[in-house]
Amino acid sequence: MGAVSLADVIAALGGDLHGASETQITRIGPLEGADAGTLSFLSNPRYQAQLAGSTAACVIVAPAFAEAAAARGAAIVTPDPYLYFARLTQWWAARVRPRPVAGIHPSAVIDPSAVIGADVSIGALAVIEAGVNIGDGAQIGPHCVVERNARIGAGSRLSARVTLGFDCQIGERCIVHAGVVIGADGFGFAPNQGQWEKIEQLGAVRIGNDVEIGANTCIDRGALEDTVLEDGVKLDNLIQIGHNVHVGAHTAMAGCAGVAGSARIGAHCTVGGGAIVLGHLSLVDHVHVSAATVVSRSIKQPGQYSGVFPFDDNASWEKNAATLRQLHTLRERLRALEKRGA
Amino acid sequence: MGAVSLADVIAALGGDLHGASETQITRIGPLEGADAGTLSFLSNPRYQAQLAGSTAACVIVAPAFAEAAAARGAAIVTPDPYLYFARLTQWWAARVRPRPVAGIHPSAVIDPSAVIGADVSIGALAVIEAGVNIGDGAQIGPHCVVERNARIGAGSRLSARVTLGFDCQIGERCIVHAGVVIGADGFGFAPNQGQWEKIEQLGAVRIGNDVEIGANTCIDRGALEDTVLEDGVKLDNLIQIGHNVHVGAHTAMAGCAGVAGSARIGAHCTVGGGAIVLGHLSLVDHVHVSAATVVSRSIKQPGQYSGVFPFDDNASWEKNAATLRQLHTLRERLRALEKRGA
Amino acid sequence: MGAVSLADVIAALGGDLHGASETQITRIGPLEGADAGTLSFLSNPRYQAQLAGSTAACVIVAPAFAEAAAARGAAIVTPDPYLYFARLTQWWAARVRPRPVAGIHPSAVIDPSAVIGADVSIGALAVIEAGVNIGDGAQIGPHCVVERNARIGAGSRLSARVTLGFDCQIGERCIVHAGVVIGADGFGFAPNQGQWEKIEQLGAVRIGNDVEIGANTCIDRGALEDTVLEDGVKLDNLIQIGHNVHVGAHTAMAGCAGVAGSARIGAHCTVGGGAIVLGHLSLVDHVHVSAATVVSRSIKQPGQYSGVFPFDDNASWEKNAATLRQLHTLRERLRALEKRGA
Repeated sequence: MGAVSLADVIAALGGDLHGASETQITRIGPLEGADAGTLSFLSNPRYQAQLAGSTAACVIVAPAFAEAAAARGAAIVTPDPYLYFARLTQWWAARVRPRPVAGIHPSAVIDPSAVIGADVSIGALAVIEAGVNIGDGAQIGPHCVVERNARIGAGSRLSARVTLGFDCQIGERCIVHAGVVIGADGFGFAPNQGQWEKIEQLGAVRIGNDVEIGANTCIDRGALEDTVLEDGVKLDNLIQIGHNVHVGAHTAMAGCAGVAGSARIGAHCTVGGGAIVLGHLSLVDHVHVSAATVVSRSIKQPGQYSGVFPFDDNASWEKNAATLRQLHTLRERLRALEKRGA
Repeated sequence: MGAVSLADVIAALGGDLHGASETQITRIGPLEGADAGTLSFLSNPRYQAQLAGSTAACVIVAPAFAEAAAARGAAIVTPDPYLYFARLTQWWAARVRPRPVAGIHPSAVIDPSAVIGADVSIGALAVIEAGVNIGDGAQIGPHCVVERNARIGAGSRLSARVTLGFDCQIGERCIVHAGVVIGADGFGFAPNQGQWEKIEQLGAVRIGNDVEIGANTCIDRGALEDTVLEDGVKLDNLIQIGHNVHVGAHTAMAGCAGVAGSARIGAHCTVGGGAIVLGHLSLVDHVHVSAATVVSRSIKQPGQYSGVFPFDDNASWEKNAATLRQLHTLRERLRALEKRGA
Repeated sequence: MGAVSLADVIAALGGDLHGASETQITRIGPLEGADAGTLSFLSNPRYQAQLAGSTAACVIVAPAFAEAAAARGAAIVTPDPYLYFARLTQWWAARVRPRPVAGIHPSAVIDPSAVIGADVSIGALAVIEAGVNIGDGAQIGPHCVVERNARIGAGSRLSARVTLGFDCQIGERCIVHAGVVIGADGFGFAPNQGQWEKIEQLGAVRIGNDVEIGANTCIDRGALEDTVLEDGVKLDNLIQIGHNVHVGAHTAMAGCAGVAGSARIGAHCTVGGGAIVLGHLSLVDHVHVSAATVVSRSIKQPGQYSGVFPFDDNASWEKNAATLRQLHTLRERLRALEKRGA
């Protein structure tokens, strides 16, 4: 990964350059620890204090910080430095990371009935079953298993070891990380004299465009209808999406979150790490669930919702937790006192 | 998947048909959104209001709703509509989903010492190590790894990418979904001068008959004895079962639950999503743990147990959570007031 | 696995033997249920009562219990019986478990540019990409995917189906269990008019020596710098480690824990099962987080920290949880009473 000049950056991504366009950049990095080859950025005003002393070659800043940034070296001024930084990482990654050569590894096992688009790459030992359809330019990593009649849209990338279940589909430009399982059976059983009778899951999973799914996350197929992730949904690692769940467009969930069956989550929501949404609930658009919160009823108003026991040193927690188990009684005692005082 | 007639359904599954037996069914679906080809069901009286207006071809109902259902079209009357529905999905899936042809994919890597029963199917690129025994009619998905001396009972199905560790065994008619790891080492270490000395895990995993295990769930091998799942246990996705755990028959756990080492969970229990059972505890039969509850001591009486911070809008939660950290002090102040008043 | 004599054990592991050195041992097991071929141990004084009646062939004990143990049969006396037991399991496992024969399975797909050390074993259908470096004596399980330029230190063991991402590295003598994903993208996006713009993750993952990582655990690559696990870290199953996280030496985490991006956890810490550490926090060395606790701010003092809603029978929990939602108001009412009384 040879150096690039600031002129190259500006040519590719725009922005208003203050400073020498021939300055060479060897890495992208945070303000702290930046060296003379570092292109850095200031997006959170909290880190403003780090700006003046930074030895970064160049700093990407909003107009308000243009002067301060330029006073110490080169600067790229742009209305949204964090967005600029995101695009910079994309441009950088495209330069330094070799895209797999299109083509099918000879060790892949591909059913002759599969339809493979142009410029597709299929990694070593991948399995593509009958009736699969893979769009132009898609990349299927080594060891992926794409079951019968599944569809993958143009430009989508599956890392190593992804399972896409039969009849399931992924839209265009999606990114699916290693170990993801899409289309395992939903968890459905009818009780029968103390035992469980399996409800076969007859639906599938439908995933829109520009969706990203983190490592080892699971998205179950629907019981009767499909489980749906709309366009632009972003899921982190180790997330569980139950059967029949519907996740609205551009909603993002952090790692270890779980959504139980038939929950319906709106668009533009965020769900924090380890949070759980119980089944058969609805969350409207623009709901933000804090990490580790358990959503136990539907949410009808946008906003931030939380529910976590505040942590403490163990001794304090033990005392408060023990008292909590008598909280209802405490309220009764308080009431009694109030009555007496009245 | 061509249409079937109600006569076909009744012939296969029984029930008391009200209406024309030649009615054609093209799908199974919920009451809401049912069309003239839909076979629907009413199991939860909560949805009773949807019955009268439903345009479903036929509705499966309990005797109490026979009249109401028949008033609007065909009906199948049966004592337990949900159980009937479950069996209907099984019958339907068997009709519309091709069972893999028995036989071993040429790309599978199978040790010559493995004993493979009759009518077994082994998928592409599966690895079957030395001394493995696979019962009649079992289905091993593509990319499964079955380590040395593991045993799989007759009729069990492993989806793609399942790992069954050495010496571990699975009973008959089990279903194991993609990404499951059975028989990784339990988490055992002896402290040694600030470092950790590994305790090799010398046990294995024993799984009974009719067990289902969800995607990416992990079941560790025992330290000295075996980790055991009895018959009929149902585990959802992304569940962690620690070493030496014993799960009683017909117990079901929802996604993201975790059971720490040496816990003993009774039969006919349910564990909600994200719940955690700490180690070395015992739960008697018929214990039901609510979602996201942390079980921190043994439970000796059947019943429902819960422990979750109720979620709220963020501002309310913050106020209550802050107060919670002083709860013990509040109790002391209440006590002082009570004394003064006495 | 033929029997061994106590003399063999002492020769390998030391300790002070009381009793007949020719006594034959056929298994290692807990005091309870021990038979005449069992070598058992007493490490927790809580189980002292089981000692006298145990029919174990021999019991490993601390000096304080030497007399009691020898009174009932053979005993091995050692200052730290649990550590002795750990080493005994290692010695036992080495005897009874065949080490895979060094060599590369013919079905593995190995890029010619990979550098493979001496005595390495590579399992069936593993994929080793260009530029990979594997140290002497390492064992790569079947179906592993080691991406380009990744490095694996001498003596490390990867179970089946591990993914090690490009440019990531693992030190020496590490153990990585099945399904682990090291080096998936961290979860980073810039908001852009209601949508999410991907921040390419330009860092990697660096893992020290003697680290163990449980099944299906995920460790994301850093955004700009690397995600780091120092020497001796032990992670259980289904753990999520976000991008840029730094875990200090000899820290251990139990199953289902999650650490959000850019958190910094000290050395010699423990994190209980299901606990969550939020992002951008620092925990000093020797911090112990209880199971299911959510760490929402930095911790600057060593010690034990907890925060879990105490579980209860469902009816009691419901009453207390409902009251909890009015806790702040209760405090106000208490204050009012106190004022009135003053």
